[in-house]
Amino acid sequence: MKIKYNLKKKDASSGARLGEIEWNGRVYETPMFMPVGTQATVKTLSPEEVADCKAGIILANTYHLWLRPGEDIVSQAGGLHKFMNYHDGPILTDSGGFQVFSLAKKKDITDDGVRFKNQYNGDELFLTPEKSIQIQEKLGSDIAMSFDECVAWPSTRDYMEHSVERTLEWARRGKRAHTSEEQSLFGIVQGGEYEDLREKCAKALVEMDFDGYSIGGTSVGEDKPTMYKMVEYATKHLPEDKVRYLMGVGDPIDIVENVMRGIDIFDCVSPTRLARHGNALTKYGKLNMKNSKFKDDFTPVSEECDCYACKNYTRAYIHHLIKCDEVFGARLLSVHNIRYLIHLVEEIREAIKEDRMQEFRSQFIKDYYESK
Amino acid sequence: MKIKYNLKKKDASSGARLGEIEWNGRVYETPMFMPVGTQATVKTLSPEEVADCKAGIILANTYHLWLRPGEDIVSQAGGLHKFMNYHDGPILTDSGGFQVFSLAKKKDITDDGVRFKNQYNGDELFLTPEKSIQIQEKLGSDIAMSFDECVAWPSTRDYMEHSVERTLEWARRGKRAHTSEEQSLFGIVQGGEYEDLREKCAKALVEMDFDGYSIGGTSVGEDKPTMYKMVEYATKHLPEDKVRYLMGVGDPIDIVENVMRGIDIFDCVSPTRLARHGNALTKYGKLNMKNSKFKDDFTPVSEECDCYACKNYTRAYIHHLIKCDEVFGARLLSVHNIRYLIHLVEEIREAIKEDRMQEFRSQFIKDYYESK
Repeated sequence: MKIKYNLKKKDASSGARLGEIEWNGRVYETPMFMPVGTQATVKTLSPEEVADCKAGIILANTYHLWLRPGEDIVSQAGGLHKFMNYHDGPILTDSGGFQVFSLAKKKDITDDGVRFKNQYNGDELFLTPEKSIQIQEKLGSDIAMSFDECVAWPSTRDYMEHSVERTLEWARRGKRAHTSEEQSLFGIVQGGEYEDLREKCAKALVEMDFDGYSIGGTSVGEDKPTMYKMVEYATKHLPEDKVRYLMGVGDPIDIVENVMRGIDIFDCVSPTRLARHGNALTKYGKLNMKNSKFKDDFTPVSEECDCYACKNYTRAYIHHLIKCDEVFGARLLSVHNIRYLIHLVEEIREAIKEDRMQEFRSQFIKDYYESK
Repeated sequence: MKIKYNLKKKDASSGARLGEIEWNGRVYETPMFMPVGTQATVKTLSPEEVADCKAGIILANTYHLWLRPGEDIVSQAGGLHKFMNYHDGPILTDSGGFQVFSLAKKKDITDDGVRFKNQYNGDELFLTPEKSIQIQEKLGSDIAMSFDECVAWPSTRDYMEHSVERTLEWARRGKRAHTSEEQSLFGIVQGGEYEDLREKCAKALVEMDFDGYSIGGTSVGEDKPTMYKMVEYATKHLPEDKVRYLMGVGDPIDIVENVMRGIDIFDCVSPTRLARHGNALTKYGKLNMKNSKFKDDFTPVSEECDCYACKNYTRAYIHHLIKCDEVFGARLLSVHNIRYLIHLVEEIREAIKEDRMQEFRSQFIKDYYESK
């Protein structure tokens, strides 16, 4: 069934929103961080481990699943939930747009869609707004995204003006093509760093009336102040009664800052990617577990953390595993990093309840950047 | 505390033995398969997953842990059980001998010990019988192995004669150096394919009175009939009231054949190694999960298997994960393959109870090799 967003409370001193997403009789609180299961698996983890991190919604990538194993296989399996055995929350799929723009080496973008080569077998592929929706409906995700043009930063105003028109037309076409009564569909606000284009895009999408709104075109090379502006330009034109999702953003400070600008949902591959490179996220900044100072440190990665890794293993053991390229090291850090980000949004929710987001932000920055 | 072996029953038609190992008030039935946690982790798996496969004793490698993180780190952590968080059975360590002989590129073997270069930093290292015992005592394993010379196959009789003398002298020296009251110590029968040398080695070790006996120098390039002979030559001179461990052997048919020659314990890296290469062990032979015939096969790897992978995932999903190099695919197959081998020894124990090892062997071969 379609999701429903309920706004519960707003922070007194910022744009932060406390809310909940209703889905199949269950409730998932926002602000929320979604772990990413690109290829129908959150890298190195089991679905139970993802759920143990108190994850709710998770994300899977349309582009990757379209290419492998193909949407028909997933459909025959009974959809993504059954295929990957994840039953603890809704599954959201992106549109494939971001991956086509960032991963395909040669691509031919027209108003009709994007033509590019399959990176695995060289076959020519053509992704259109209608095709993206059809794939997502076959994948059986609970929340689908409109196909959009994701433009690198910086881009000229001329290009961005035309691109926003294209994204809006693609949103319209996708919405017409969308037939599922079960699946929610979000529109994606583009417009780069141009305030009027973000406004125009947001308003036009709101007019089309989507089940939720995403903000795209961030995390494409811009600096943090620019990203925060892009988000502000968009959120101020989005309705209060619909959920807002900032795509691909998961740096801890970016979560704090963008919650304060009215964002409800975040996703990022960073917790598992950092883990594979031996990094642990903590309240007091990032730890490189390869550092030899951890070789005889028999404390957990984080004393405050309630994750499986911190409850059962020492920094010394994780250091050893990472140095030896043992997968279990990446697993433990993946669990820890995902739990860290989910715990962060839990703390944020408490702060919103108590109208102290500004204080929370100040303390967060102090701990994260200044404690070392 | 030291382990105690109780022989419960012998098969009427073969040398197969049903028994149990007592340790800290718990009982582990034999024949048994031990998963291998080379670097203090069973590759890709958590200790809980290993225990869920109904593993009892697990193995860790002295050579690898000596080099990384070093026995002092493990000792400071409180020993291997605490370091790696495995509490569901004893931990056995090998002597390091096999790895020195197979992994070190240049080595200088004398009657005193083996001199070789640390593969990670080029430092010169010297492993002796005493040093091997000291490392194993510091690692805090429950069962230690004597340092032995592991000779490649084939070797000349002259070389093997001298080598057996050396292995016996090293066993004596190791036993003298062994001070732990908690840790059991096994002697290792060498002697290659030479019946009289295996006999001589076994008898001399039995005279030294170890807590158990291992058979080494197999899985070093010889064919299966030769391996089985080597085992027979050794087991017939080993006492009934002590446990017998065939080192590094884990091919399913080799487990069946060697149980019938009086072996109680097996170990092998094969279940996790096969998994990383996308192979699944089943009653009806090995499946290469990369094969495209599995892409839309929505049945479990094995209908008869009670492992986590078979209860929750399809061949199609595992095929997809393996094709995409996703770690979770290797995890699922590792769980399955370890459970397969442990289930195999469970079936073997039932067969011994009912005096039908010969029939079991015939049916096993029929299913495993002739069903395809």
